[in-house]
Amino acid sequence: MNKIEVTLGIDIGGTNTVLGFVDINGNSYLKSTIPTKGHEPADKYFERLRRKIDELLIEIYGKYILKGIGIGAPNANYHKGTVEYPPNLNWGYVEVIKIIKQYYNIPSAITNDANAAAIGEMKFGAAKDMKDFIVITLGTGVGSGIVVNGQLVYGADGFAGEIGHTIYDPQGRDCGCGRKGCLETYASASGIRRTVIEMLQNSNDKSELRNLTLDELTSKKIYEAALHGDKIALEAFEFTGKVLGTKLADSVAHTSPEAIVLFGGLASAGKFIFEPTKKYMEQNLLNIFKNKVKIIPSGLPEGDSAVLGASALIWSELDKLTPA
Amino acid sequence: MNKIEVTLGIDIGGTNTVLGFVDINGNSYLKSTIPTKGHEPADKYFERLRRKIDELLIEIYGKYILKGIGIGAPNANYHKGTVEYPPNLNWGYVEVIKIIKQYYNIPSAITNDANAAAIGEMKFGAAKDMKDFIVITLGTGVGSGIVVNGQLVYGADGFAGEIGHTIYDPQGRDCGCGRKGCLETYASASGIRRTVIEMLQNSNDKSELRNLTLDELTSKKIYEAALHGDKIALEAFEFTGKVLGTKLADSVAHTSPEAIVLFGGLASAGKFIFEPTKKYMEQNLLNIFKNKVKIIPSGLPEGDSAVLGASALIWSELDKLTPA
Repeated sequence: MNKIEVTLGIDIGGTNTVLGFVDINGNSYLKSTIPTKGHEPADKYFERLRRKIDELLIEIYGKYILKGIGIGAPNANYHKGTVEYPPNLNWGYVEVIKIIKQYYNIPSAITNDANAAAIGEMKFGAAKDMKDFIVITLGTGVGSGIVVNGQLVYGADGFAGEIGHTIYDPQGRDCGCGRKGCLETYASASGIRRTVIEMLQNSNDKSELRNLTLDELTSKKIYEAALHGDKIALEAFEFTGKVLGTKLADSVAHTSPEAIVLFGGLASAGKFIFEPTKKYMEQNLLNIFKNKVKIIPSGLPEGDSAVLGASALIWSELDKLTPA
Repeated sequence: MNKIEVTLGIDIGGTNTVLGFVDINGNSYLKSTIPTKGHEPADKYFERLRRKIDELLIEIYGKYILKGIGIGAPNANYHKGTVEYPPNLNWGYVEVIKIIKQYYNIPSAITNDANAAAIGEMKFGAAKDMKDFIVITLGTGVGSGIVVNGQLVYGADGFAGEIGHTIYDPQGRDCGCGRKGCLETYASASGIRRTVIEMLQNSNDKSELRNLTLDELTSKKIYEAALHGDKIALEAFEFTGKVLGTKLADSVAHTSPEAIVLFGGLASAGKFIFEPTKKYMEQNLLNIFKNKVKIIPSGLPEGDSAVLGASALIWSELDKLTPA
C-alpha cells in the first residue's frame, strides 16, 4: 500500500491548541487537542506540543508521510516565523518556526489565524479556483486574510490584512488596540453585544434580551432573539451589517476581490448578517464595482476549519517548492 | 553596432497623448505628442495615433528594436485590454489592445495612469527593489496603484486600486463618482481648492488668496501662498494631509506597504503635503504598523513620468514572458 502524504496543521488558540493531519484533498486524520495554558511561558508550551506531536507521529508511522507543518496563531509573523506579544498568551516574542525546525527538520510555516483561514478557503473551501478574494473572520475580534493573484498578502512586514482595524468612526468606540472606532468594535461577536447593550439602554422597545444578565448576553443569544423576530436583535444585526458593509466597500476599492468570505462565529447568523452586509456594501461601492462582488459563507467544515487552514498554509508553501 | 531594444510608452491624457521609446534602463528617446481631441470618436483617434507611431517607427528603423507597446489611459482595464467610458473622452467602450495588435503584432498592454505610474516607480523610480508599496497620484483626481509581492494588484475585474474613492466622510463633499465624501474630493488639486474656498468663506483671516478670482485659485497658487506663510493656505495643506493620512492608515492595514509614493501635481508642494500626511497617518496607524511606512516622492523625472510608466508596464509584461 502506498503511504499517504499529509501535513500537520496546528491551530494555537487562546484556550486550546488543535492538531490534525490533512492530505492534499483536505481530508483530516487523527485530530487531537492540548490545552494552550496561556499563562505558562512559551518553552513549557512547546515542550508539551512536541510530546503530543511525537505521540501522533508514532501513531501514523508506516501509514502516512509527513511533508510539512503549518501553524495558525495569534500575532504570528509569516516572514519571521515568530509569534510577537500575543494578547492572551504569556509568551512575549517567540521564534516558533526555529523551535519547530529544531525538533522536526521539515518545511514549516506560521501565520495568523485569519490568514490561515484564507489559505484554507482557497485550497479546500469556498474560494477554490479564485485568485482574488478576502476572508473576514467575525469572532471575538475581526480578522482578515487578503488574497491577490492567488497569493496571500503578507506585506512588507508580514502583518498585512488587518481590515478589522480600519477605522469606521474616528470618534467611535474604544478598541482593544488603543484607538477608537475600529471595524472590530462593531462587527465582531463582542461588537454586536455592545450594540445591543447600547440599544437596550436607548430605547423602550420590548426585547427578550432584557431578561438576560450581561454575562448571558452573547452573540448566540442575539441570533436566537433575531430568529424570534425580536426588534432590538434585528436592528442590531442591521447596524452590524451596515458598519461591515460600509467598510468592505473600501476594501473592494483596494483589491477588487471576486468574493468576500464571512467566516467564524457571527457569520453563522446567516441571512441576519449576510443580507445587511451585502446591502450596505453595494450602497457604498464605486459604480465600477457594483453587483460584482459576492459575499459568501465559509466552505470549510466548521469543526475542522482551523486545522485545515493551518495545514493549507504549508501545503501552499510546498506547492511553491515544487517546480511547475 | 548592436540595436537597442526599446518599448513604446503611450500616455493617453484628456488633452494630449504623449509617446516615447524607452529602453530597459529607463532612458527615453524620441518623445512626441499628438492632441487627444476627446470629442472625436475613438476610431479617428486611433487612426491618427497609428500614423504617428508609423512615423516614429521609420525614424528608429535600423537603430532600435521595438519589443512591445505599453499604454496608460483613463478607465483602462488591464485584463480586457479596454478603455471603458472614460469621463473626458467621447469613446464609449473601446478594445484598445485589439486595435493596437491589428496594426502591430507585438506584445501590448494597457492599464490606468496610476497603475502605470506604480509600475514606473518599481522599474525606474522610487520603488526600485520594493515588493510592497502603494503609489498615490494627487492630480485633478486621486488615483492609486497598489503593488503586492512585486506584482501590480489588478483584482478580479482589472479595476483594483481605487483608493481615491474610499470614503473619508459619508456625509461629506459630493464626488464626481456620484457618492459623497470620497478621499478624492479632499486630497486632489481640486479638493484643496474646495478646502480653501470653504476656509475663505468661514473665516476672516487675511489671505493673499482672497485677491484671486475662482479661476485663478489653483493648487499652485495655494502652494505659493503657503510658501509666503499664508495662514489659510497652510491650514488647507494641514487639513488635506489630515484627510489623506487618515485614509492611508486604512490602506496600510490592508497591504502593509514598505512605502507610499506621492505622485503628481499636489505632491510637488513638498513638505506642505508630505509632513501632515505622514503625521496623521502615524496617528491613525495600528500599533504594529507605526514607524515602518515611508512616505516618499516620485523618483521619475517629472516630464517623462507618464511615458516611463506606460513603457514600464510592457517591460514588466515582457519580463513575465522570459523564463527566469
